[in-house]
Amino acid sequence: MEGGYPKGRIRREDILTAAVAVYGEAGYHGSSLREVAKRAGITHAGLLYYFPTKEALLAAVLERRDADDGVRLRLNAPPGRDVLRHWLALAEHNVANPGIVELYSRLAAEAVAPDHPAHDYFVRHYRIARRSAFETFRVLGERGELRTGVDARTAAVTFMALSDGLQVQWLTKPDEVDLVGVLRHYINTMLAEPI
Amino acid sequence: MEGGYPKGRIRREDILTAAVAVYGEAGYHGSSLREVAKRAGITHAGLLYYFPTKEALLAAVLERRDADDGVRLRLNAPPGRDVLRHWLALAEHNVANPGIVELYSRLAAEAVAPDHPAHDYFVRHYRIARRSAFETFRVLGERGELRTGVDARTAAVTFMALSDGLQVQWLTKPDEVDLVGVLRHYINTMLAEPI
Repeated sequence: MEGGYPKGRIRREDILTAAVAVYGEAGYHGSSLREVAKRAGITHAGLLYYFPTKEALLAAVLERRDADDGVRLRLNAPPGRDVLRHWLALAEHNVANPGIVELYSRLAAEAVAPDHPAHDYFVRHYRIARRSAFETFRVLGERGELRTGVDARTAAVTFMALSDGLQVQWLTKPDEVDLVGVLRHYINTMLAEPI
Repeated sequence: MEGGYPKGRIRREDILTAAVAVYGEAGYHGSSLREVAKRAGITHAGLLYYFPTKEALLAAVLERRDADDGVRLRLNAPPGRDVLRHWLALAEHNVANPGIVELYSRLAAEAVAPDHPAHDYFVRHYRIARRSAFETFRVLGERGELRTGVDARTAAVTFMALSDGLQVQWLTKPDEVDLVGVLRHYINTMLAEPI
């Protein structure tokens, strides 16, 4: 289904765009595949051909978000200080888009169960994010830009987990948690010279 | 309902104990108030008098867990290095009890919405946890036990968020995340002398 004929790919993209719109208005729990199908101008049965469950559709929305983030924020830039700045830019982008952060947080928590349709997405997502963050800290370490005693692998896991945990606290009470500020502080605690 | 006659308090405790057992077997989503009522030996209507919704019952389960943790792990010990050790003991306890961690993570993500029945619980929970962690880091700072440049308030928020975020990654793929090890590493990164 990833490849397929151009028409199928376009139809799939249309459904994802409709899903983002519907989630934004009604929330994930308040939305239905039927409503998404209507918005995308496709039958319910037609939508089920592409996305057999609500969760499968949500996972696809998140995968596309990852791809968009990657391009827009250049998260695949060569490891180095610029990547740290891109991470903070992503956090700023998230603060301006609480709806998608809420979807992500909620689904991440639901998808810890191995039989959840989005489980494999999150296993992959965490692996890729940790590996990418590790690569960045590892290179910074080789260049002597990390503070003495910082372990690149632990710093990578810590940054990803801190980011996820902060999002939930920030969503719960936005005025009590400085999402970007705390992430910046953590990054600077790991660096010999602050960014 | 918090106070009330002794019989009411005992009934309430029985329901919470039954809920923990049912959640442990069927998960939160797989459970029903009807099943919890049956286990507690009370009518469905009787249970609704104490807990009008599934979420209200879950919030009460979590509040009692907090109280139990507080007593068992002496989380209310005077601020200092012992508190840091209690935090790690709590993390070890959580690793041995993934069911309750999963409930906590899932509900935290759902309860970011202000109209969620467990919302107020989490607002309070985060506030208390952050304040308590801040108190510990503040006192350690006054004693010169923090590394230079560590801000007690940021360290407190970071530790709580890191802990929550790690739990979700660990639940998703337990063999890929060393929950206790990463928390220990973070704590030691904040200290002049490791624990």
